[in-house]
Amino acid sequence: MSGKFIVIEGLEGAGKTTARDCVVEVLRARGVTDIVFTREPGGTPLAEKLRQLIKQGLEGEKITDKAELLMLYAARVQLVETIIQPALARGAWVVGDRHDLSSQAYQGGGRGIDARLMQTLRDTVLGAFRPHLTLYLDVTPDIGLQRARARGELDRIEQESLAFFERTRQRYLELAANDATVKIIDATQPLAEVTLSLKRALHSWLAEQ
Amino acid sequence: MSGKFIVIEGLEGAGKTTARDCVVEVLRARGVTDIVFTREPGGTPLAEKLRQLIKQGLEGEKITDKAELLMLYAARVQLVETIIQPALARGAWVVGDRHDLSSQAYQGGGRGIDARLMQTLRDTVLGAFRPHLTLYLDVTPDIGLQRARARGELDRIEQESLAFFERTRQRYLELAANDATVKIIDATQPLAEVTLSLKRALHSWLAEQ
Repeated sequence: MSGKFIVIEGLEGAGKTTARDCVVEVLRARGVTDIVFTREPGGTPLAEKLRQLIKQGLEGEKITDKAELLMLYAARVQLVETIIQPALARGAWVVGDRHDLSSQAYQGGGRGIDARLMQTLRDTVLGAFRPHLTLYLDVTPDIGLQRARARGELDRIEQESLAFFERTRQRYLELAANDATVKIIDATQPLAEVTLSLKRALHSWLAEQ
Repeated sequence: MSGKFIVIEGLEGAGKTTARDCVVEVLRARGVTDIVFTREPGGTPLAEKLRQLIKQGLEGEKITDKAELLMLYAARVQLVETIIQPALARGAWVVGDRHDLSSQAYQGGGRGIDARLMQTLRDTVLGAFRPHLTLYLDVTPDIGLQRARARGELDRIEQESLAFFERTRQRYLELAANDATVKIIDATQPLAEVTLSLKRALHSWLAEQ
């Protein structure tokens, strides 16, 4: 099987890192050796610079919603064109910590940016490029934020209100329900259960490829 | 007369700084006291950070055309929403060193990014927001670059090929020919002549407002 682009999505504290390790374990067990990891925003020196600006903001300056969105897409297209597409072209697998669905959920749902603008921007910038599979780890914001807080300091995005994360989660669920390439994993379960659900979803998807 | 947004455009070495001083002199002579200066990309702390990334690039990483364009629009929308629109709303005049026409000419013309993509992005990000007047200083690339080189080191953009600047100039001229709000000033003339042409164009436009 040629390489695929698998993305892990979810709110802060949903357990994306554990899920990534789990996906890699499954892939390696199937003999996949060439795996490229990405995270968004980020994954190239330029994209990491943009990540830093987006995450930390600038002393005394509020980043406007549209500027934030455009920086996210700048970082994304740089990553897609210079890392993800070349990796897939040589047959590697790419496992991504977040991709476009995050923008749809956080900026479209959370910040309430117009859905048509979101779609136009995605189509204009990315064309038909999409992940082959997205594993969406669904948690309620209270559980996710509790876990994220336990990890340490919160960044600019993580300091948003609970209502912001509720809107983000709702958008994730809406989009996942209408996209056969997105699998919803109940990540409010105990860790062992989450891992089991994730592996089941991944194995079932791999069997269909 | 309420405040207007006047933009000065042109290739490197076209004489934009001298032109700006000239515009300000004319406005002050007409009793305008509240004048805001902008430059693009830049003009806010975030936009200046993006300018730095765009101008200098990153060691060993080529910024893709789309990423560059999106960073330019991120910087632009941040400037428009946080500086230019509030200034115009309070009645100030805004004099800008470059604005959207630069992206149309450099990224659309010079880099050859698809015209429909350029238009979609502009409309999506800026809506109907446009400068009231654009003074385009037309120079041939050889004259412009000669002047820019005399000023010192060239940045990443200024190191582009002569053919790049030829394409950029052609796009400037095409767009100016089809837009009544853009006045073309022959900036290959001796400085005193350029200043005279510029003042004539500005006075004539002001008389119509």
